[in-house]
Amino acid sequence: MLALKVVLANGELMTTARRARKSSAGYDLTRLIVGAEGTLGVITELTLKLSGIPEAISAGVCPFPSVEVACNAAIATIQSGVPVARIELLDELQVKATNLYSKLALPEVPMLFVEFHGSPAGVAEQAERFGEIARDLAGGPFEWATKPEDRSRLWQARHDAYWAARGLRPGAQAFATDVCVPISRLAECVTATQREIAELGLVAPILGHVGDGNFHLSLMVDMSDTAEVEAAKTLCERLVERALAMDGTCTGEHGVGQGKMKYLAGELGSPALGAMAAIKRALDPDDIMNPGKIVAIT
Amino acid sequence: MLALKVVLANGELMTTARRARKSSAGYDLTRLIVGAEGTLGVITELTLKLSGIPEAISAGVCPFPSVEVACNAAIATIQSGVPVARIELLDELQVKATNLYSKLALPEVPMLFVEFHGSPAGVAEQAERFGEIARDLAGGPFEWATKPEDRSRLWQARHDAYWAARGLRPGAQAFATDVCVPISRLAECVTATQREIAELGLVAPILGHVGDGNFHLSLMVDMSDTAEVEAAKTLCERLVERALAMDGTCTGEHGVGQGKMKYLAGELGSPALGAMAAIKRALDPDDIMNPGKIVAIT
Repeated sequence: MLALKVVLANGELMTTARRARKSSAGYDLTRLIVGAEGTLGVITELTLKLSGIPEAISAGVCPFPSVEVACNAAIATIQSGVPVARIELLDELQVKATNLYSKLALPEVPMLFVEFHGSPAGVAEQAERFGEIARDLAGGPFEWATKPEDRSRLWQARHDAYWAARGLRPGAQAFATDVCVPISRLAECVTATQREIAELGLVAPILGHVGDGNFHLSLMVDMSDTAEVEAAKTLCERLVERALAMDGTCTGEHGVGQGKMKYLAGELGSPALGAMAAIKRALDPDDIMNPGKIVAIT
Repeated sequence: MLALKVVLANGELMTTARRARKSSAGYDLTRLIVGAEGTLGVITELTLKLSGIPEAISAGVCPFPSVEVACNAAIATIQSGVPVARIELLDELQVKATNLYSKLALPEVPMLFVEFHGSPAGVAEQAERFGEIARDLAGGPFEWATKPEDRSRLWQARHDAYWAARGLRPGAQAFATDVCVPISRLAECVTATQREIAELGLVAPILGHVGDGNFHLSLMVDMSDTAEVEAAKTLCERLVERALAMDGTCTGEHGVGQGKMKYLAGELGSPALGAMAAIKRALDPDDIMNPGKIVAIT
């Protein structure tokens, strides 16, 4: 993100930056506005940094005996300096859902989906290196490809994940939530969450952006069953508590909105919350920009 | 940068984020504070994301017939997807200065210093690719190496750049300044700046982080010569005006401080300046945190 045009609460049209790739000209208004969920102004124009399509791509899928081993493989890959472009975890339930939905026959165990970008020799070398790391940790076999149609076939389960999850319980309402923890705690966090899902009798496949320590739950809830709705709420509360206890955040991507406002004081403390409220009051004193989200000022 | 601890003007100790690699939990206070030059609080603790030392590194130097061709080679390298880790421009005067200072015999023409990170095969391939791009544009010969001692020898001129520049005029005062423009305008901006340095009779070698469109001038000024001091001020003014006319910024890295406050309104417009002042007033109403820098609130 290079720059924004933003309509402010006072009606002014603000430009946050020029078109240079970097700047230290004053406060970073671009990033302040991007993360503000519309509470500080309305973005009307974006200037983006473009990334070229890589010359070559390799991509593949790899089964693992457990979420822990899968996460360890992801950590080892990153720490060994292999520049992985995408690394996604599907837990066993998510794999099962995609087998049903996409008529695949993947082993119903935790799987990593990986993708590498670079030169033809580079992406082959990176895929081979990942395969060795996976094998050393008792994962695999790692199946990978470079041709677009073969890569699409391998990644199909990942791309179908959302609709596959919905297919697990036709008629149920889907709730998506996410947390993010230090990557060293990710396996522990996912495993404890899976245990809790089972204990509460819920259906919630897990999909993780493991390179970031970030994962998503797709909760499939029968809204006519009040006990199940309550159990789902309990799961979400405990998910956040667990992430915070691991020095993580209540949301890696989805944002705060109204639903996660109550966690911010616990996550960041009252000085940060006070600073956010002060900024909100300064830029939107009449509370007309997406009011009642992120931080309450009345 | 993952998180900060910051002492605020009200005496509170604020934590801006947890240890997760990403978060969307409220306003991005980390980046707001990082770019604030101490005007919103005092940073007392930083949590950084660490990068591993690459398995292999290749690095080299390449002469070019002009700044324009050197910049075109940098653009072509980036656009062809070669993941260059560092790409630095030294103009002909900076090369001459380092020859004198470091007793080298580099051709006194604009040069690019490049570095690639990755696997042994990857960094060799990337260096070869860069060499081909340079040759196609009539640059070169590109000399590169992977052994640490050979890389250090090649990059010595870059590492000595500051002291070499000072060596051009013993006794002169060194002033460093920087601007940043869209990379497509970089060659034009550097070339016009060189012309103006010559016209004003000044000594100011140029060093550019060309991958970002960012470059630095080391102005060597005889402070006892009032006409020269005035000429140096004129050069700096026109440098910023030129960068802004090219949709760039008055500073890519050095920051605003007091010296560049007068350019912010022209660069970003009064709504952005008003937002910065509102944030400053909200977080530091008594103006006790590095007062009188970036934005005036009294």
